Amino acid sequence: MLSPDGKKRVIITNVSPKVEEGRFPAKAIVEDDIVISADIFGDGHDVIAASAYIRHAADRLWRELPMRFVTNDRWQTAFSAERKGTYTFKVTAWVDHYTTWKNGLKKKYEAGQDIGVDLLIGAGLLRDAASANQREAVRLNTWAAQLEESTDPGQAVFLAHDPEVAAVMYKHRYRDAVTEYPTTYRIEVERKKAGFSTWYELFPRSASPEAERHGTFNDVANLLPHIAKMGFDVLYFPPIHPIGEVNRKGKNNSLKANPGDPGSPWAIGNRLGGHKAIHPELGTFDDFKALIKAAGDYGIEIAMDIAYQCAPDHPYVKEHPQWFTWRPDGTVQFAENPPKKYEDILPFNFETDDWENLWKELKSVIDYWVGAGIKVFRIDNPHTKAFAFWQWMIGEVRAEHPEVIFLAEAFTRPRVMERLAKAGFNQSYTYFTWRNTKQEIEQYMTELVHTEMRHYFRPNFWPNTPDILPPILTHGGENAHIMRVILAGTLSSNYGLYGPVYEFGMNTPHGSKEEYIDNEKYEIKHWNWDQYTRIGDIITRLNRIRRENTALQSTWNIQFADTSNDQILCYIKTDANTGNQLAIVVNLDVFHTQGAHIRLPMDKLGIGYDEHYIVSDLLGGGKYRWFGDFNYVELNPYLMPAHIFTIIKEQNHD
Amino acid sequence: MLSPDGKKRVIITNVSPKVEEGRFPAKAIVEDDIVISADIFGDGHDVIAASAYIRHAADRLWRELPMRFVTNDRWQTAFSAERKGTYTFKVTAWVDHYTTWKNGLKKKYEAGQDIGVDLLIGAGLLRDAASANQREAVRLNTWAAQLEESTDPGQAVFLAHDPEVAAVMYKHRYRDAVTEYPTTYRIEVERKKAGFSTWYELFPRSASPEAERHGTFNDVANLLPHIAKMGFDVLYFPPIHPIGEVNRKGKNNSLKANPGDPGSPWAIGNRLGGHKAIHPELGTFDDFKALIKAAGDYGIEIAMDIAYQCAPDHPYVKEHPQWFTWRPDGTVQFAENPPKKYEDILPFNFETDDWENLWKELKSVIDYWVGAGIKVFRIDNPHTKAFAFWQWMIGEVRAEHPEVIFLAEAFTRPRVMERLAKAGFNQSYTYFTWRNTKQEIEQYMTELVHTEMRHYFRPNFWPNTPDILPPILTHGGENAHIMRVILAGTLSSNYGLYGPVYEFGMNTPHGSKEEYIDNEKYEIKHWNWDQYTRIGDIITRLNRIRRENTALQSTWNIQFADTSNDQILCYIKTDANTGNQLAIVVNLDVFHTQGAHIRLPMDKLGIGYDEHYIVSDLLGGGKYRWFGDFNYVELNPYLMPAHIFTIIKEQNHD
Repeated sequence: MLSPDGKKRVIITNVSPKVEEGRFPAKAIVEDDIVISADIFGDGHDVIAASAYIRHAADRLWRELPMRFVTNDRWQTAFSAERKGTYTFKVTAWVDHYTTWKNGLKKKYEAGQDIGVDLLIGAGLLRDAASANQREAVRLNTWAAQLEESTDPGQAVFLAHDPEVAAVMYKHRYRDAVTEYPTTYRIEVERKKAGFSTWYELFPRSASPEAERHGTFNDVANLLPHIAKMGFDVLYFPPIHPIGEVNRKGKNNSLKANPGDPGSPWAIGNRLGGHKAIHPELGTFDDFKALIKAAGDYGIEIAMDIAYQCAPDHPYVKEHPQWFTWRPDGTVQFAENPPKKYEDILPFNFETDDWENLWKELKSVIDYWVGAGIKVFRIDNPHTKAFAFWQWMIGEVRAEHPEVIFLAEAFTRPRVMERLAKAGFNQSYTYFTWRNTKQEIEQYMTELVHTEMRHYFRPNFWPNTPDILPPILTHGGENAHIMRVILAGTLSSNYGLYGPVYEFGMNTPHGSKEEYIDNEKYEIKHWNWDQYTRIGDIITRLNRIRRENTALQSTWNIQFADTSNDQILCYIKTDANTGNQLAIVVNLDVFHTQGAHIRLPMDKLGIGYDEHYIVSDLLGGGKYRWFGDFNYVELNPYLMPAHIFTIIKEQNHD
Repeated sequence: MLSPDGKKRVIITNVSPKVEEGRFPAKAIVEDDIVISADIFGDGHDVIAASAYIRHAADRLWRELPMRFVTNDRWQTAFSAERKGTYTFKVTAWVDHYTTWKNGLKKKYEAGQDIGVDLLIGAGLLRDAASANQREAVRLNTWAAQLEESTDPGQAVFLAHDPEVAAVMYKHRYRDAVTEYPTTYRIEVERKKAGFSTWYELFPRSASPEAERHGTFNDVANLLPHIAKMGFDVLYFPPIHPIGEVNRKGKNNSLKANPGDPGSPWAIGNRLGGHKAIHPELGTFDDFKALIKAAGDYGIEIAMDIAYQCAPDHPYVKEHPQWFTWRPDGTVQFAENPPKKYEDILPFNFETDDWENLWKELKSVIDYWVGAGIKVFRIDNPHTKAFAFWQWMIGEVRAEHPEVIFLAEAFTRPRVMERLAKAGFNQSYTYFTWRNTKQEIEQYMTELVHTEMRHYFRPNFWPNTPDILPPILTHGGENAHIMRVILAGTLSSNYGLYGPVYEFGMNTPHGSKEEYIDNEKYEIKHWNWDQYTRIGDIITRLNRIRRENTALQSTWNIQFADTSNDQILCYIKTDANTGNQLAIVVNLDVFHTQGAHIRLPMDKLGIGYDEHYIVSDLLGGGKYRWFGDFNYVELNPYLMPAHIFTIIKEQNHD
């Protein structure tokens, strides 16, 4: 069989951005400059032209974006994503006979060759275009006649190169000779907070100022000034639902709860309700809505934790027994990883024949809380629920509410975490928590920023969580807490902390486990929020620097710099739009002063190798005059483990 | 809309081998072990299973290949490609509930837990399978009953793990829970010569033993012993068709031919015929067929050059004027790259409305010569003809004659060369001709071998061609000719030479151009085939080593070794099937002796770091006892610029 596209001589391939050849949308943030690029080339030496077309889901018409040649057969164009939601784009290209002709004409003319016949050829191209384009026919035929009747070759070459002629001819294409790449791709444009957010996690039940009283939403409201002053803009709560009473866990994850033990908030549901109910001791639904509003006044959004699992006494178990697995002895199947048993938790059976109703009910949980004013959800263990469910659920919710953000709490294998992000999660927990050495950090950032992951996996860096006390924090104490939060907040535009524990430097592990002793998951804590801590002070400075420096509001603009000491990590972050340029230098050794020569990438900074410039430390306050790419730094972790330098070019005044 | 595949919990992605997400087939050689792999994973902790299915184009049924877990969610299987032609494959995966259950059962049993209910669960799985599988129902129900009635938990666990049970249960899958990757991929399996070939190019018209007589096919027949003795197995001729007389080029590409100038064989066609005719002075069609047969007796295949272009007096111009471009003054458009003109050549117009007939006629040229017994074609400048044409033409020819090999002579931009290979060319000329330094060679080989190119771009390394005399050969003389041919023949399993010129060390350039002076393209040469040359001697040894060492018969099995001197390049080539292991060491400095410590990758060689082994130089004849990974080598380019060591493990006899 002959190809149906025999006359389409231009090839398009390797289109970007794409995720799994278009199976999933690429992600972007509203107002981002989105670059569309592709390898585009034809056979032979003819000039080619290319255009991308974009369309927002709410639009009827495609918008054409002419592409330009960059290098090595790569073409690109860019547009500003003005609206949230889904954009679709496609790429087209064709042989540009008119430009091929006019370029050849000029070369022949300049070489002194006779161009009489060539002018007739060009006139023919214009007349062909005229007969296909009624609106421009008069102008095109006039130009054609001028070429045909020309007695001054120089003037004719000039006319051929007239931009007005070129513009009309650019629009003229023979449909059957235009290559259109067979796949259209999607870009999911999200709101600013999806790309730049600073999270503080606390257990509302520990928010009470009185040691013996259960904390409430109203108590949390009183903490908002503290959290806002520190510069956090997302306040995230573990589940706030009624806690199971059957098989409730006691302190330190013990199998038997003592009377008065509050249980784990992740054991969701009891006779008082399930995923759409509020644990009564926290307050009422109205209290919750009032807290959401009060937080909003401080520029803080409340994020909820959604854990799709049930305590044995969750109402679903009786109402929808078909959503659970039942054993031949008539008992319900609790979570297990043989020989371990988790008797306080029932998983949903995603292979139930009633899966469609299960999916709908689980989505309705999100809808319910979106209705209450929640737009940010941290999803617990998404990797133990069906991928297809997430793709459907997140897609449905975001189609209606594109402002909703889902953070995937999956600390699991790389391919699984990647797939969840592809399925729609807007942010993802990462391996940052365990990446400590210079090589580990550089390698991990390279993977996140310089592979296809960049287009779908948006990292959120957490130095700790209620589940994870990494060894560096245990062994490195206060200095480590400071160093790690500075890394989190400057490597990634999205970062978060399990807050009070971090702020107050708690770091006692549970035996040999990488977990906190006396974990707040199983008991109520009491914190002295008013005490000064060096950690809290530096977090406050860090978050202010993040707000004031746009270069820290993207994760993709990092470039590492060579240093002469493996204990000193250095990277620059730059924002071409605002001119904001930072160099971050971190001493990874939490016990000793370390020094290094660092070598900044001057080309990227736009500073000459023989120029002076000022680096001003936004964190510690020092200010230095540097020269060229090699400069020396020294950091004492007991004073300040890092510089966050803003780079200021010197005026010419010498 | 709910996903139609809600119960399919297993994800498949990143399937290999693939080329542009299945748009083009991957390439392989008959009897290759073809590895099919994919990232495969499910949610949660259930055990999963996966199978690939393959089918040759001539088969009706799919063959199932169970896949096994490798690491990091990567699964693979392999099969031997027994037949030439196109294989299709697909990948499927599912949750393996039976294995999940039996693994958990064992862990619970070993932890001393009660497994009574678990045995009933397992029996239920067996009974479900029985009701879906009539043929195995009796056995399955019997096993189920044994589990149900078991009074000995240990024995029940043993039964659950019986391989016979596992084998039956592996075949049992719930169709609606099996994920099938949506794309099926193709693998094009070619004959051995596509993967391992050694080419010698000569102009038959220069084959005459008498200086003043035009060479003939019969003269070439007399050279076969010489070419066979040197170890070449493809003898490639420039076009053998009648040469245009209109605008014929003279010596050294001069615009005017003198009387008696033979013209360029690439200016195809005159009043005596075109692409299906033979230049009469070379002999008759029967002479040609006789030569093909005689060459075959020496194990040599004749390769023809197909250049789809016409001299102005080619019969096509009168018979099919619509395939050419005509200018408004009634003249036909010759090739041009303004302001340069190539008046001896007319290109085809691939945008002609009659393109379908043009394509068919061009394909008929191949069919014609295939009919004469030619199975190897070197295609001239394919990058100046439509890509869609090549994909169609090569696909059609190979569907009928899968033994036909097309070599793409495109020395052009990377994306264009890649696309021609994707479109179907079985071998491609490369940038090797200009890659001289250690870094250049390592980088280029890495690109060819360790990117997706490996699956579609099969390199054929040429140190020279009639069009290209690279500077290294001009400046480096005999030593450079020897060094470069050793590189070509050991880096790539396919390599070739523009033979007599290379063998006899001709290297005078045409002025400042990287071309030969007095180019054979425009005049007839006379060679003294009987003279001894050092270059020819070493080529003969090289080709014998290639035939006798299977590790040199693949391009994909290369691994570079560190060396302490940038002038010394070292790489190993290994064949796991035969155990053949080579270490090639090349002095890139053609004027000076160079030495280096080299560091062999012992893990890859299967030799301990504290073991002795023998390296025996197949090229120069030396034999050494080496220890561990670090060893010293020294090479004098005037003696022998390279070692080709075979590596022999020592027997334990000390």
